[in-house]
Amino acid sequence: MSPVEITKDFNPLRSRDDQRLNRIAGPSGLIIFGVTGDLSRKKLMPAVYDLANRGLLPPGFALVGFARRDWVDQDFEQVVYEAVKQHARTPFHDEVWQQLAQGIRFVPGEFDDDEAFQRLADTIHALDEERGTNGNHAFYLSIPPKAFPLVTEQLKKSGLADSKEGQWRRVVIEKPFGSDLKTARELNSVVESVFPPDSVFRIDHYLGKETVQNILALRFANELYEPIWNANYVDHVQITMAEDIGVAGRAGYYDGIGAARDVIQNHLLQLLALTAMEEPISFDAKDLRAEKEKVLAAVRLPEDLSTATARGQYAGGWQGGEKVLGFLEEEGMNPQSATETFAAIKLEIGTRRWAGVPFYLRTGKRLGRRVTEIAVVFKRAPQQLFDGSQTEALGQNALVIRVQPDEGVTIRFGSKVPGAGMQVRDVTMDFGYGHSFTEASPEAYERLILDVLLGDPPLFPRHEEVELSWKILDPIEEFWAKQGQPEQYKPGSWGPKSADDMMARDGRVWRRP
Amino acid sequence: MSPVEITKDFNPLRSRDDQRLNRIAGPSGLIIFGVTGDLSRKKLMPAVYDLANRGLLPPGFALVGFARRDWVDQDFEQVVYEAVKQHARTPFHDEVWQQLAQGIRFVPGEFDDDEAFQRLADTIHALDEERGTNGNHAFYLSIPPKAFPLVTEQLKKSGLADSKEGQWRRVVIEKPFGSDLKTARELNSVVESVFPPDSVFRIDHYLGKETVQNILALRFANELYEPIWNANYVDHVQITMAEDIGVAGRAGYYDGIGAARDVIQNHLLQLLALTAMEEPISFDAKDLRAEKEKVLAAVRLPEDLSTATARGQYAGGWQGGEKVLGFLEEEGMNPQSATETFAAIKLEIGTRRWAGVPFYLRTGKRLGRRVTEIAVVFKRAPQQLFDGSQTEALGQNALVIRVQPDEGVTIRFGSKVPGAGMQVRDVTMDFGYGHSFTEASPEAYERLILDVLLGDPPLFPRHEEVELSWKILDPIEEFWAKQGQPEQYKPGSWGPKSADDMMARDGRVWRRP
Repeated sequence: MSPVEITKDFNPLRSRDDQRLNRIAGPSGLIIFGVTGDLSRKKLMPAVYDLANRGLLPPGFALVGFARRDWVDQDFEQVVYEAVKQHARTPFHDEVWQQLAQGIRFVPGEFDDDEAFQRLADTIHALDEERGTNGNHAFYLSIPPKAFPLVTEQLKKSGLADSKEGQWRRVVIEKPFGSDLKTARELNSVVESVFPPDSVFRIDHYLGKETVQNILALRFANELYEPIWNANYVDHVQITMAEDIGVAGRAGYYDGIGAARDVIQNHLLQLLALTAMEEPISFDAKDLRAEKEKVLAAVRLPEDLSTATARGQYAGGWQGGEKVLGFLEEEGMNPQSATETFAAIKLEIGTRRWAGVPFYLRTGKRLGRRVTEIAVVFKRAPQQLFDGSQTEALGQNALVIRVQPDEGVTIRFGSKVPGAGMQVRDVTMDFGYGHSFTEASPEAYERLILDVLLGDPPLFPRHEEVELSWKILDPIEEFWAKQGQPEQYKPGSWGPKSADDMMARDGRVWRRP
Repeated sequence: MSPVEITKDFNPLRSRDDQRLNRIAGPSGLIIFGVTGDLSRKKLMPAVYDLANRGLLPPGFALVGFARRDWVDQDFEQVVYEAVKQHARTPFHDEVWQQLAQGIRFVPGEFDDDEAFQRLADTIHALDEERGTNGNHAFYLSIPPKAFPLVTEQLKKSGLADSKEGQWRRVVIEKPFGSDLKTARELNSVVESVFPPDSVFRIDHYLGKETVQNILALRFANELYEPIWNANYVDHVQITMAEDIGVAGRAGYYDGIGAARDVIQNHLLQLLALTAMEEPISFDAKDLRAEKEKVLAAVRLPEDLSTATARGQYAGGWQGGEKVLGFLEEEGMNPQSATETFAAIKLEIGTRRWAGVPFYLRTGKRLGRRVTEIAVVFKRAPQQLFDGSQTEALGQNALVIRVQPDEGVTIRFGSKVPGAGMQVRDVTMDFGYGHSFTEASPEAYERLILDVLLGDPPLFPRHEEVELSWKILDPIEEFWAKQGQPEQYKPGSWGPKSADDMMARDGRVWRRP
């Protein structure tokens, strides 16, 4: 059976939609730098298999690993196999795996070894011949940012960054995109000196999540929500990404970075942009990014950052029946670190749609629950005919986009309580992905890797967005740098008291999602 | 143990809300005419017990039956006991029953028998002494409308309609309130010549349903819905009351009445009024009724009734695996009857809020399913960035108030389908009474009888509303009267073809709820 036949006949999970839209990658290869890392093993390799299993990869697809390991192709194949067996989303089918395995290669080497890159070039050229990848290759830099300049330089020197007419070369980079505006610009100038802007794919895996893409459908495919999606009706917006784990194992990376740089600069500001942007004239990358950038450029910081931000460090203690270390006690952590593990920021957006509506962003580790959500909280009705005793249990209406886990949308509103009186109480109505669709949600990395291979960039922020995000964050980081140690908060709580105080001053409260 | 103690100590289902609002009836009696009928046995008697069980009736409450039966008190007590045992919503508690039974009386007699009414007066006066009902009595006329004049006249003659300072007498009447404007006026002048307007309680049991009362909470206690509750965003409204049964056993009553008089004139026009009215300045009866009347007065019939109405008669055939008779074959039915068992009407409302938005009302017997709902169907988004192939499965947004069964609210909107492409498909989010509240929903009659005893009239239409409804219906009935036989439709279907055609001409379709 030839590979082509296998793919045509055997694609158990290929969805009707995917087929109809012909979103199947053309002949191409994916070269991963950093194949020994967690991300590669847990996310990238399984995503490649899942795409193959869904019939979305071309028959001759190639997967090449590059790392400082004394491996031959078969060793790497075994590594991929284990990763797929352990972490793939879709069922294991031996035919799919065999098909994929035929295109797996490994190139051993250091990043500063010119010869290794020459071997990589030879491998890729051979694949172009053997597998028909045809000069189309994506380089996925799953490596520390400090290695970006060296690797991109090597790709250039070895000629791997150059594509011939009708072929393409792309580079995929992961956050952090710098640690402030200055370093982000430096990083960008290195990468874009080798690859043109259109060939640089910055992965923010949050943008690959179904629920995040659904923000576009929810807002713009419907008539229900957009009329009230503005300052006339919205009281404020809360965007939360909470983790219940600490930084164990990542202390070295995390110290000096902190919650705001790690999460707010990318994930939360992207969620804010999608929530607050105007309707683009199309969903093409150019138009979509232009609207996101407009919102980010319109973000205003409150004048007094001491009342409009909060930060904290998790203390040691008990969480979920387990004794956990405080941030400063984590192995390898600088015990004097002033890095925050919780950050909350109040922003305003200077557009006609949002003027006067605060956007509260918060993220933290060792919080009560792992949850990411966007909560659009509406004003109270302009008057309440039901008297106070009837509406004691009535909060504000809210529309909550549950990004993860338990993906879906919740609307909270007041309803009559059954009984003789007219009591009104909050109830929720719920749409859950799990219940509403038989289609399983692909992993974010499946979507994003496929988009890279297809050259479909709307879900990838371009450098301008990265710059705008740092422009928002830099003044806050500078302010915090002068404030000494962050406040400690209990593990399993919802952050430091200063975060609650920050909301209380505005007469509001954080959601306990 | 005295009655007072029983009630105070034993009210297993009295809800916190009811207690807090002090919605407990004062000393009073309920006199039911027509105690041998189905409504009395299945609804009224059980509702009285359920109210007692919830601790909402006073210790000395009295229940008096009047009928042409050779019964003594104990016989009637046994009838009530059987009805309660069989049909009460709440569990049977002997203490509650014993307490209630002490106040049960029966007066045998014909409606034209002056002496019988004198005996009734004596019974009531004795109760005032023995049970402390204190001259406060409600007369529930669960009798054919043609008997209304006689009974009200007798109540007057016997002095039972007169109340002393600080006491009250009320009369409760059931639909039909006439069969057109003229007869409704005649009926009203008879009733209101004996009882002042404030003492006449017209029962539309739909208005006692939790879901109907929730329309007020949904619209006015929230900020989410009211901004889009108008012609700018709403495409049309569909109000449906479908029954899956035929008229078996009620052929005599039904012939000459029909679906429109039986259901549209009262239930559906009341639902329309609550859905379309402006926010009242309070929920007091006066203010609430004024807004409902304003809407009813603003209802306009389309000029060409032949394209804006449809009617049908169910044919014989198979429904749910059973062979059923056609309307004209029902026992006791006039085989030439032109009475409709299905009626659909398109109305417009000449208010700034609703101008140009059609309201489609339909009701019928032997339809696909028993269901009552109000569906507010929204316009499509003004433009659709997702292309046609992406939105094939996308309908219009809708908010559906499910009146019965499965009481609740559903919102239908478009959401991204999980997968690599951007497909948008309709999903629903749902709020269900059963899932959201631990409080059980009282039966409509519990609420309404309690309101009568409390003298709380907002849920009862006043005569003006009845008149306005007939003004809407009369021209349609006159038009239909000239059209001959209605179209036949299959049992278990959703009505005659002409009903679908009527919608199709407007480019719309009926919901299949």
